[in-house]
Amino acid sequence: MLQIWALDGIREITPGDDLVGVILDAVDGPLRDGDIVVVTSKIVSKAEGRIIEAADREDAITRETVRLVASRTSPTGHVTRIVENPLGIVSAAAGVDASNTPEGTVLLLPVDPDASARALATGLRTATGAHVGVIITDTLGRAWREGQTDHAIGAGGIHVFEDLRGTVDAEGRPLVVTLPCVADEIAAATDLVKGKAARRPVAIVRGRADLVGDLDLPGARSIVRDPVRDMFRQGADEAYAEGFAAGRAAGA
Amino acid sequence: MLQIWALDGIREITPGDDLVGVILDAVDGPLRDGDIVVVTSKIVSKAEGRIIEAADREDAITRETVRLVASRTSPTGHVTRIVENPLGIVSAAAGVDASNTPEGTVLLLPVDPDASARALATGLRTATGAHVGVIITDTLGRAWREGQTDHAIGAGGIHVFEDLRGTVDAEGRPLVVTLPCVADEIAAATDLVKGKAARRPVAIVRGRADLVGDLDLPGARSIVRDPVRDMFRQGADEAYAEGFAAGRAAGA
Repeated sequence: MLQIWALDGIREITPGDDLVGVILDAVDGPLRDGDIVVVTSKIVSKAEGRIIEAADREDAITRETVRLVASRTSPTGHVTRIVENPLGIVSAAAGVDASNTPEGTVLLLPVDPDASARALATGLRTATGAHVGVIITDTLGRAWREGQTDHAIGAGGIHVFEDLRGTVDAEGRPLVVTLPCVADEIAAATDLVKGKAARRPVAIVRGRADLVGDLDLPGARSIVRDPVRDMFRQGADEAYAEGFAAGRAAGA
Repeated sequence: MLQIWALDGIREITPGDDLVGVILDAVDGPLRDGDIVVVTSKIVSKAEGRIIEAADREDAITRETVRLVASRTSPTGHVTRIVENPLGIVSAAAGVDASNTPEGTVLLLPVDPDASARALATGLRTATGAHVGVIITDTLGRAWREGQTDHAIGAGGIHVFEDLRGTVDAEGRPLVVTLPCVADEIAAATDLVKGKAARRPVAIVRGRADLVGDLDLPGARSIVRDPVRDMFRQGADEAYAEGFAAGRAAGA
């Protein structure tokens, strides 16, 4: 049985806040060995002071863009950009968040969400003695599918992939291809209790203690595919245009 | 509190099996109004007789391919194809499954997973009187991220998106952009209890009764993005090659 619940009563976070204390004030019972604490990146960013003034959200996105992956202009002139941000994550808006922040400001992602998650896990373990794991989440769109789901962008003390190497299927054949990204699945699961409009940025997942491990496990950065081996490292229109230019030059 | 658990003791499914009866035999207590029954597509396919003989899995993939989206040949000569299948779903292997099936056979996806899900929801509602929803899942890879997560490919009697229109954020501004794909989040959550190697293809999600609704709600087909408006409708290499050929012709 997996149990997932959001913590009520997390107060508004401001720069410098101690998230370990905030979470422990809000938990409704003792954390147990194997609990997974799942935190929306928004409050991590706020605690880390990643709020910047920005008259223009688009300008903030431009500054956070390492690489433009694709863009599209709607009939009304609105430009949607899919970009790679400094964490390697491909998304719309580069993780720049203009919702739930004061007018005239935007929230950037934590500088190093894996380090933030490890620090939270360390702090929670030290304070409670419970062997917990931490995941930091962000809401991301997807290729090929409408809507968004929550994903893991930081992880501390938890296996982000389930290691099925050596296991076999019901016919005894090795399950070699499958690499379930359990960190993303946990992030998605907690969005079902955290909600978007409510101020419930922290959830607890109880029932997969086997995924909790050492603090030096690979973080969520290991989920990000290297663009070199990504068949979708660039939008179709952008790749076509590059190819067209190269072809015209070659044919001239 | 969200509770998620897998049903133990689901027997091996063969063509013609009545999945409503199989699920009700396995449930460990009465289904309740608002429960969401999440079923791995594999057993739906088996019940529907979607097992075909195939000496060659690659041939089966070719037959199930509506459109080649991208392909890549590894240094060892292995070809990975990302294709659109008859359901519009973009994935590796077109939903052709050669694991957990007898040698020399492969399993195709259900012909119409939304219809299968609606039929299951109808049957479970009729048999139990409980107002339940049904999601049928498949394991899919993603652009930009390593590993796979479970997604919804069929849905009956359940909202696949959470409708946040009209809701506001903590600052009172409308949440217009966000469209959480709760069906995919539920699918992902249940993979955490169903596992890949175990024969636990059915899970129950209890605690989001608000998502359960009429049987004529849009199915999981509505999650699939129309390729026309998909910036990643084609792999970068494929789009570049098409552009190059067109550019060379234009420049000649």
